This record gives sequence, structure tokens and C-alpha cells, in this order.
Amino acid sequence: MLGLAGLTALAVAAPAPAAAAPRSGVVDLTHTLTPQLPVWPGNPPMVMVPVAWHESGGFGQFALGYWEHTGTHLDAPAHRIPGATTTDALAVDDLVAPLVVIDISAEAAADADAVVTVADIDNWRSRHGEIPERAFVAMYSGWEHRLDRPSTFLNLDERGTPHAPGFSAEAARYLVEHCAIVGAGVDTLSLDCGADPEYGAHTALLGAGRYGVEMLANLAAVPAAGATVVIGAPKHAGGTGGPCRVLALT
Amino acid sequence: MLGLAGLTALAVAAPAPAAAAPRSGVVDLTHTLTPQLPVWPGNPPMVMVPVAWHESGGFGQFALGYWEHTGTHLDAPAHRIPGATTTDALAVDDLVAPLVVIDISAEAAADADAVVTVADIDNWRSRHGEIPERAFVAMYSGWEHRLDRPSTFLNLDERGTPHAPGFSAEAARYLVEHCAIVGAGVDTLSLDCGADPEYGAHTALLGAGRYGVEMLANLAAVPAAGATVVIGAPKHAGGTGGPCRVLALT
Ligand SMILES: [Zn+2]
Ligand SMILES: [Zn+2]
Repeated sequence: MLGLAGLTALAVAAPAPAAAAPRSGVVDLTHTLTPQLPVWPGNPPMVMVPVAWHESGGFGQFALGYWEHTGTHLDAPAHRIPGATTTDALAVDDLVAPLVVIDISAEAAADADAVVTVADIDNWRSRHGEIPERAFVAMYSGWEHRLDRPSTFLNLDERGTPHAPGFSAEAARYLVEHCAIVGAGVDTLSLDCGADPEYGAHTALLGAGRYGVEMLANLAAVPAAGATVVIGAPKHAGGTGGPCRVLALT
Repeated sequence: MLGLAGLTALAVAAPAPAAAAPRSGVVDLTHTLTPQLPVWPGNPPMVMVPVAWHESGGFGQFALGYWEHTGTHLDAPAHRIPGATTTDALAVDDLVAPLVVIDISAEAAADADAVVTVADIDNWRSRHGEIPERAFVAMYSGWEHRLDRPSTFLNLDERGTPHAPGFSAEAARYLVEHCAIVGAGVDTLSLDCGADPEYGAHTALLGAGRYGVEMLANLAAVPAAGATVVIGAPKHAGGTGGPCRVLALT
């Protein structure tokens, strides 16, 4: 006979799968990549240079140049941890995942250093049930509205420190240790709240072999629970991340 | 009462949807992007340059440089047609599609200039039923086995002309006009058979606003019918194409 501990272990090992809803649409969670998009302080904007022309040869083509962590982009574990998993080595099964959206836009509107806390995760659960296994958990802070005035997106203070929402280190550790997530995402430029000099959320997530996605778009257009996300991660050998197409199937 | 013409029109307008099978896995149709991958004659290999180091600042990062049409990559209509749809403007609904795989590997093993013909499309239909509406139709020629000896992948003759399989212009036109496809893909470096100096398949597909994907991988690992493909198309503004992650959900 199973005691309480045994039942709890079973519940953790075999959570009920999210109900399969009929697919109704595709939502693009990706910003259009332009030289005008804000980048992390010190990073350059992306560049495009024409290298082929329709007039001579029949095809147009550009050369592209960017630093990996530009636009809506992946953070592979190797971004933070030398020798850890690179973009090309991510498990492909982890790139298709139940999408969980945690909305902290009200807190973020009042405090640019707002973070996703363990209490926010519990609050999500109280409304939507258990976090599905192998989920991708995204923070929605409403930050993309600030792209109208790009300097307010990074929101640097007079010392050059960014102030924008992210995951608290504690919440990131909790998601890894208790929720078996495959990765986490934000609609800002950093998994960490800009004010965290320790990069605790990056360390907790990437240090545990999970991936991150930064600068997600359109999270207000997907449900908090029930969608599936597909991460079109870049696959260059040895990469630490890179621009990626992120689609939600609702 | 409907005559024969009316019934035919109905059948074309409302084909039976492909049966929804329970999902069993994710298959990666993307080659790992390296400087060693063959590129179209005259195009340079991709480059990666380190720009940030874990030892100073806590994060590693590379700058990436490549021409758009490198590795497993998208061809937007604008690649062929000035002013046509660019990478960022593709309809997002078109990036998730029923996957149709047409296997011409036997013909390709005997003839490097083998093409997908209308007869091959009819042959697929006789086995699997109607081509689903809004499908992505991929040619499997078995060409990736030649990556062991990269010069045999492009397979240039003594005049520098590539010899590798593709779609015949007629088959490409047929897929656009009669099958309402969203796009087409190949496991070689060109939608056209290398020997077609007119690029008739490119013109038929991209000229009709459809997209292409070149240098697909692992098509032998997916069923000829019944899978769903997700095209992680690049989203840089004004692009003619670019490296993309392509995943099949089986
Ligand atoms: Zn990053
Ligand atoms: Zn191309």
C-alpha cells in the first residue's frame, strides 16, 4: 500500500497531460529583426549588406551580421557556462513544449525592477493547475510597448545599469528543481531583472542545462495555459545562442 | 443536381483533411551549420568570431556572419522577384503545414539531374491520397549522404555547372496551381535541378508567392504523409531568406 509520500512521488512522476485542444492558430512570438531594435549595452546592431542582385544573375541576397544575442533569441547553456550545451546540441524534443505564461505586467508597470517570484508561480497554479512537465515558462511583463521609445526598453539609469523585469533567481531555481521545465523566456532583454548584478536567473537556468529565450513578442496574444510553443532555435555548431523564430500553436 | 464538373469542383474545394494522428515525436530536418557545409558556387562559408568571453563578464558570445542562402535555409519570394514578400512578411500560418515527402532517391541514385515530375506527384497521391491543402511538399533525393564528400554534394561538372536533383518547372507549377501548397523544399542546394539554367522551379514557386526551403536534412526519418512541419523562418526585415530551423512533428 502506498503511503502519502508514495502517492506524492507518483503524482510528481506522472502528472496529468495537458488536455489536447483542437488547434486554432499560429501566433508569432518573434520580433522583426532590424538595426533599430534595442540590444544589450555594448552590443552592436545587426547589419545587412547586399551581395547579389536580381539585375545580374536573377537572385537577390544579403550578407547578415549580428552578435548571437540580438532580437528574439536563444540563450544556450554555453552562453553562461563554459563547455555546456551549445545551440546545435539542444535536445530537439525540448524545442516543442507546453507554453506557460506568467503575467507580471501590473507589477512591472509600477516597478521596472519587478521579478517573477515563486508566489507568482503558485498564483499561476492556483488558476491553471500544475505546471505541465517539460514546459517552457515565459514571463509577460508588457515591456514590448516600450519599443516605441527604444531607450525606455533597456531603461538604463545614470550609471548605465538596465532596469527591466526578469525572473528572480529563486523562481528560476524553483522552476528547474520542482517543475522540470525545458526552458524559460522573457519579453525583456535578459532572463534576469536588469538590476541583478549576479545574473542569478541565467545561472540557475543555463547552469542546469535549460535554455532561455529573450525578447519574446506578443505574449499577450496567447493563453496563460494550453498553447504549445515551438522554438526555432539556431543550429550553428558551437553557438551560445542566436536569433530564433518562436511560434505558439493555440 | 450536381453534374460531374460540379462534383469535381467540390472535391477540389474541400479535400478531406489528413487524419490527425497522435503526436509521437519531433524530427529535426535541419543540418548543423558549419563552415564546412557546401554552399552555392561563389558564396562564402559562414563565419563565427568570438566577441565575449566567460572569463571577463561571465558570458560567452559569438558574432555570426553568413550569406542568407547558407545551410538549411529559407528562400523568400523576394529572393527571385524584386519587391515580392520578404522573410519578415511571410504569413505565419503558412509556417506550420502538413508535410508531404516525395521520394525520388532511386531515380537520383541513377541520374544526378533527376527531377520531381508531375507523374511523381500522381504516384504519391495514388499511395497516400490527395495532397492536403496548404501543404509543404519536400523532395527527398537522398543527397545528404553525399555530405561525407562535400564536392559530390554540389557535384560540379568541368564547366562549373552543378548537377543535383530538384523540382521540374512543370511539377512546381502544378503544385502551385492545382495543389494550393504553401511552400516546397529540397534536400539539395536548389529547388531546381542543378542543370536547369532557367531556374524554372524557383520562378514558379517564388513567383507565385510561395516559399522554398533548401538543404533539408533527415527526410528519410519522417513519413511520406501525415507529419506536420514547422518552418522556423528567419524574420529580419527585408530579407530574401536565411538559415532556419525546420522541425517535423510526427
Ligand atoms: Zn541572450
Ligand atoms: Zn536559397
